[in-house]
Amino acid sequence: MPIIALTTDFGTRDHFVAAMKGVILGIAPKTTIVDVSHEIKPYDVAEAAFVVWQVWNDFPQGTIHVVVVDPGVGTSRRIILAQYDRRLIVAPDNGVISWLHRSLRIEDMRSVENQEYFRPNPSSTFHGRDVLAPVAAHLAAGIKPSAMGPRTDRAEVLPLPVRPARTAGGFEGRVIHVDRFGTLITNITRQDLFAPAVQPRSWRVSVNNEAIGPIRDTFHDVPRQTVVALIGSADLLEIAVNQGSALERFGPAEGIRVEVR
Amino acid sequence: MPIIALTTDFGTRDHFVAAMKGVILGIAPKTTIVDVSHEIKPYDVAEAAFVVWQVWNDFPQGTIHVVVVDPGVGTSRRIILAQYDRRLIVAPDNGVISWLHRSLRIEDMRSVENQEYFRPNPSSTFHGRDVLAPVAAHLAAGIKPSAMGPRTDRAEVLPLPVRPARTAGGFEGRVIHVDRFGTLITNITRQDLFAPAVQPRSWRVSVNNEAIGPIRDTFHDVPRQTVVALIGSADLLEIAVNQGSALERFGPAEGIRVEVR
Amino acid sequence: MPIIALTTDFGTRDHFVAAMKGVILGIAPKTTIVDVSHEIKPYDVAEAAFVVWQVWNDFPQGTIHVVVVDPGVGTSRRIILAQYDRRLIVAPDNGVISWLHRSLRIEDMRSVENQEYFRPNPSSTFHGRDVLAPVAAHLAAGIKPSAMGPRTDRAEVLPLPVRPARTAGGFEGRVIHVDRFGTLITNITRQDLFAPAVQPRSWRVSVNNEAIGPIRDTFHDVPRQTVVALIGSADLLEIAVNQGSALERFGPAEGIRVEVR
Repeated sequence: MPIIALTTDFGTRDHFVAAMKGVILGIAPKTTIVDVSHEIKPYDVAEAAFVVWQVWNDFPQGTIHVVVVDPGVGTSRRIILAQYDRRLIVAPDNGVISWLHRSLRIEDMRSVENQEYFRPNPSSTFHGRDVLAPVAAHLAAGIKPSAMGPRTDRAEVLPLPVRPARTAGGFEGRVIHVDRFGTLITNITRQDLFAPAVQPRSWRVSVNNEAIGPIRDTFHDVPRQTVVALIGSADLLEIAVNQGSALERFGPAEGIRVEVR
Repeated sequence: MPIIALTTDFGTRDHFVAAMKGVILGIAPKTTIVDVSHEIKPYDVAEAAFVVWQVWNDFPQGTIHVVVVDPGVGTSRRIILAQYDRRLIVAPDNGVISWLHRSLRIEDMRSVENQEYFRPNPSSTFHGRDVLAPVAAHLAAGIKPSAMGPRTDRAEVLPLPVRPARTAGGFEGRVIHVDRFGTLITNITRQDLFAPAVQPRSWRVSVNNEAIGPIRDTFHDVPRQTVVALIGSADLLEIAVNQGSALERFGPAEGIRVEVR
Repeated sequence: MPIIALTTDFGTRDHFVAAMKGVILGIAPKTTIVDVSHEIKPYDVAEAAFVVWQVWNDFPQGTIHVVVVDPGVGTSRRIILAQYDRRLIVAPDNGVISWLHRSLRIEDMRSVENQEYFRPNPSSTFHGRDVLAPVAAHLAAGIKPSAMGPRTDRAEVLPLPVRPARTAGGFEGRVIHVDRFGTLITNITRQDLFAPAVQPRSWRVSVNNEAIGPIRDTFHDVPRQTVVALIGSADLLEIAVNQGSALERFGPAEGIRVEVR
């Protein structure tokens, strides 16, 4: 009972996601299909790369992720099939694997070229339905990744702010994602801050030069509507407002500077 | 093939719901996971309590509901596991069970404390993924509720307007929910109005002192865009506008007074 | 392992869709339930008719579609069960089958009347839960369509702009759907344009009298933010803006005139 997990920028109003699911179930009826997100900002490859990375290890080994954020659909951009930590991703070769690629060891990468596993006469505008869904479904049905195309070494990887800047007394980080609650997720990791030699409680956080205080354990270590810095569920430093929105307070996300010293 | 039904305020843009599903399927691969709603207003425990109550008896016996509307995540608030009508709910002890608790007979209630069924090293900000999802999955996989923690008698129950006020000639009700069509669901029940001694058709309904007329059978007993009172699918008195929005007409919901006489 | 595919205007905030799923799983626990869309504009029968038609052949044979866009719920409008291309649809008889009916050969049509397969005491406002879901679930569980009610010949079919107008030098088309990316889908088909005798590349497209150029293969045959005409994944002529919105450029949809000559 393999799992196929879908991440797209298709939204849920149109029939696009359902078309992919219909195709998958036609090929591999016993697949468990899980929606990761269909609300990726249209064409926002970096957001999709972040989201699929975030859930990677929450899904069981053997899970097949399909990511369709594909501004280059119909061009000669390749489709790649990559394996990290015994989970697979099928996606356009446009950078969607970037966070995975920079965080995990790659185990296999293929250029998906074997049209035997595509739909006949694929459209030039909907490879999600005509190429990626059937390839994932055939993998779920037991076809080996090696059957999908030749091994490849290169893939598009975005110039992400993977690491925070080292400063005299600590780190200067960037906001790499904003969640639905308006919480700002930064690129400063638990590992950065709590390496053995460091006294966790001695850190002081500031956002856009405004002092936020120490790193807390939970939202509730501060009063309601107060800014709080903590290590979130992704082991990254987050800036939140207890029952409020840090984005509203400090946004837009691009310009926010988070310092820890 | 157990069912786990999810109700959260996570929205569907982020990866939070998918993370929970991944964890569930890793523990109990044959689970059928159903989304009840992820569009609960952030931190709105009362709305979640209403929604899970509304679907309670539409799901088969044995269904395990997980509700994650959890403004107190990371504090010492407990996780409870309760059974009503042979269906289970796992939720923070913050009032999410209120409508169930006031409407149904409780069959068992546990304080979920056995960390054996949590994820190792649970985060302090995402108990949905690290505590509630794995507990539900282990229940789906056959672990007994009694293994999750000791029996408990007390749980947070919100001071809900469960019953309408009795008036000289009838009832004064409150709006307890507004649905996507803008229909106002009140706390006046079919039972209140149609107890044996009452002549159903003799009731007259008014909203904010505006006369609406008798209680109808369907939306279509009035012209389009006209206000109509009827007993809805939850056996509660509803105020609707045929193919329009009663909320737009009478809102905001908090101040609306519905009288039946 | 039958598939039930759901299309409604219920949205995903309320419990309505989940109530239907709970009922289905209570009757036919092994059903795979797929959401087609719950974001149909409230009461927009024509949009639902388009969406269900679009995915029809992407789902395997035997799929049972349930469509609940039902402004007439509670009136004497019938429920119909129709079969096209070995897939079934259960829906109110209000025109939801229109695109299917005009595009595919009907194989069977029933008036759903056998209350044995309804929920006991169905409400007058939520036939999705009380009539359509249980009927579909019983079909999924193996009950024959013929058990649901007598054969019928007539059904409501909307006066859709199924065919474009023939002009001296080509076609004048109408926008029949706008997708989430703002792409305009017209009623001019690949068949219309690329019948054997026609030179594909000789067509010139104009929108609201603005010349768009020839019909391209992909979005990327034009620069970003540029208007492009192409044959989309539904084999219909589409007007798009590469990584932008054609609706914003030319809308509202009702007044847009697409000409090919």
